[in-house]
Amino acid sequence: MPVWDLLFVNANIATMCRDQGVYGIVENAALAVTNGEISWIGSEVALPHRNANQVIDTEKQWLTPALIDCHTHLIFGGDRALEFERRLNGVSYAQIAQEGGGIRSTVEATRTATKGQLFNSAQIRIQRLMQEGVATIEVKSGYGLDRDTELTMLEVGRELNNKLEADVVTTFLGAHSIPVEYHTKSDEYLHLVINDVLPVVHDHDLADAIDAYCEHIAFSAEQVRKLFEAATNLDLPVKLHADQLSQCGGAELAASFNALSADHLEYTNTSGVEALAESGTIAVLLPGPFLVLNEKQLPPIDALRDYDVPIAIATDCNPGSSPLCSLRMAMNLACNMFQLTPEECLAGVTRNAAIALGLANDRGTLELGKRADIALWNILHPRELTYWAGVNQLAQLYIKGHLI
Amino acid sequence: MPVWDLLFVNANIATMCRDQGVYGIVENAALAVTNGEISWIGSEVALPHRNANQVIDTEKQWLTPALIDCHTHLIFGGDRALEFERRLNGVSYAQIAQEGGGIRSTVEATRTATKGQLFNSAQIRIQRLMQEGVATIEVKSGYGLDRDTELTMLEVGRELNNKLEADVVTTFLGAHSIPVEYHTKSDEYLHLVINDVLPVVHDHDLADAIDAYCEHIAFSAEQVRKLFEAATNLDLPVKLHADQLSQCGGAELAASFNALSADHLEYTNTSGVEALAESGTIAVLLPGPFLVLNEKQLPPIDALRDYDVPIAIATDCNPGSSPLCSLRMAMNLACNMFQLTPEECLAGVTRNAAIALGLANDRGTLELGKRADIALWNILHPRELTYWAGVNQLAQLYIKGHLI
Repeated sequence: MPVWDLLFVNANIATMCRDQGVYGIVENAALAVTNGEISWIGSEVALPHRNANQVIDTEKQWLTPALIDCHTHLIFGGDRALEFERRLNGVSYAQIAQEGGGIRSTVEATRTATKGQLFNSAQIRIQRLMQEGVATIEVKSGYGLDRDTELTMLEVGRELNNKLEADVVTTFLGAHSIPVEYHTKSDEYLHLVINDVLPVVHDHDLADAIDAYCEHIAFSAEQVRKLFEAATNLDLPVKLHADQLSQCGGAELAASFNALSADHLEYTNTSGVEALAESGTIAVLLPGPFLVLNEKQLPPIDALRDYDVPIAIATDCNPGSSPLCSLRMAMNLACNMFQLTPEECLAGVTRNAAIALGLANDRGTLELGKRADIALWNILHPRELTYWAGVNQLAQLYIKGHLI
Repeated sequence: MPVWDLLFVNANIATMCRDQGVYGIVENAALAVTNGEISWIGSEVALPHRNANQVIDTEKQWLTPALIDCHTHLIFGGDRALEFERRLNGVSYAQIAQEGGGIRSTVEATRTATKGQLFNSAQIRIQRLMQEGVATIEVKSGYGLDRDTELTMLEVGRELNNKLEADVVTTFLGAHSIPVEYHTKSDEYLHLVINDVLPVVHDHDLADAIDAYCEHIAFSAEQVRKLFEAATNLDLPVKLHADQLSQCGGAELAASFNALSADHLEYTNTSGVEALAESGTIAVLLPGPFLVLNEKQLPPIDALRDYDVPIAIATDCNPGSSPLCSLRMAMNLACNMFQLTPEECLAGVTRNAAIALGLANDRGTLELGKRADIALWNILHPRELTYWAGVNQLAQLYIKGHLI
């Protein structure tokens, strides 16, 4: 008879497994952990034994998969608080851009920051996310827009992953914006991204996926296609900022490369949704920038539901369009602004966020053999995790079976 | 030469005094506290002496007035998470109301809760607000809608004030909704409020102000007028839920009684704003219910600015239309949804919120003789308090000069 490392009893569990009903609820449940993995889960009455090095009576707390923030840009220098304030005082975007504001100012601040500064500020943001139950966080490059700073950002991401208890997944987003030095020469910049930076990213294993911003203010579908072909040749998975501000075929493009995810999607039409469904690409919705940019065009929620495209939710934490460092608030905003259901929101930061990162094999749901990444909550029902805003009901977070 | 109890040095201060420029900024500043009051404030170079029982080097932290949440309904039984979820799953308001949902369910849960239960759940919410720098909180009755439960709610409010370090200010909101027992007999219910409950509230000093909900689904302007006349006869100040869902003359009505505040105001027109300006009534804007109810009609921000009506911001924390327990998030939402400036938002939870509660004589700004209710923040500029969402930069909170 095996001895478990850890046994939770007198618990309520939302497994978030897709085939187990809404939330995958098991009341009066128990869950055992061995070697950082879930070694038993089910109704407590069915427990075969109680031999465990540690038994925790949760007193009816709820266990859910630890949360996953699958789209952030949380490594950056400086902030854009002044720009935020100027805009609300009536200064136009055009004026701010003309004066070197917008993403340009973050690129400037990121290029001049030391590696230690980038690490420290990102660490604080990640710890904030962990305090509300997040155990896996994606971070993108994309504020360097030159070879060295892009590589530095990814190295900082890897260092965060090595030094923090949370898993930090990195994405190379060299094709985030056209740097000012390449103004009117976006093909030249893209050539640098594909030929000078991507091979190094690959050879040094600095990124888990490749991302791009497909939009009239950034890169065309044709340009992104070239990048994605290069990434595919290196066996690197892709994802895409698609159709945020206009319908530019982003969803179809992402789907044609079997992208892990297509993100934003405000202007995606039905054929784009159909393409995502066929390729099994996750739709990542981002209420943060929708709020901050005061957008009115809602993502195609009904079509995503009709075509059964799994929806993930993320903070998009970044200094410009989403200075939001709370995945719980993103869930609440997704309910209130996108009219998602609380269950869709919780699935969006667990099961579907794991798929969006290509990590569904070992996390995102509570089931036998998956990592013991578990959030314990002082709630009466998991719907409270989206209903309440500005309240953190996290009791404890376990990552790989270790109490954080 | 006096010895101060407490002296903050090496600080930055946002006094939020109206006549001291945007934020009332004093950099390289010092602030002294004696007997719980501010006994010196200004540039550190001008400090007359440093004789203090305790000297605190803030290392360039920012000091602002402690925050004030001037409109909440945070004493209640149960919650409405299930209703929130059902609505997002497509069940209509009408159906939910027909089944006893909406405010009826909160009234039922509040009537059946014990006083201890009401105290404990409200205490948790107040402590959450205090964690982000709130030192004064208004709470309303209005979920009893019968004599005894209305009095109980106010007694719980007074008890919270006595037992917690924060100041809890109570408002009698018997005229919140028409209870189901008085369906079609709203005049009879109002008669009870005015003749059976209000005198007890007054005689036992249970409320600092009288509030009502003036709306087609609640009480008419004519009914509210009767209540306000009775309150005025008892020398109790009034405030009003005005023009939230329709233009019903709420702002003018509030102004005609020199109300402390008129709250919501989405449908207030220019003549209503003009009336508020003339009476010196504060406009309390509530982004929480605006978000949750998915409203589109914005409050008349430009007119409020044009007529120089002071604007306050509050959480409206309540289980139905605003399950929001973060004043910082309310500030962020007010920027992003109402396009207020960060400075307007901070004034809205300090100086103007104090006026809205009739407490401007002793709090809401940092100036000589006012209470030492001070929030210390790890920020580089006060604009960061609205720019960031889901981040709590509070370092310390002092109430009446005591570290909380």
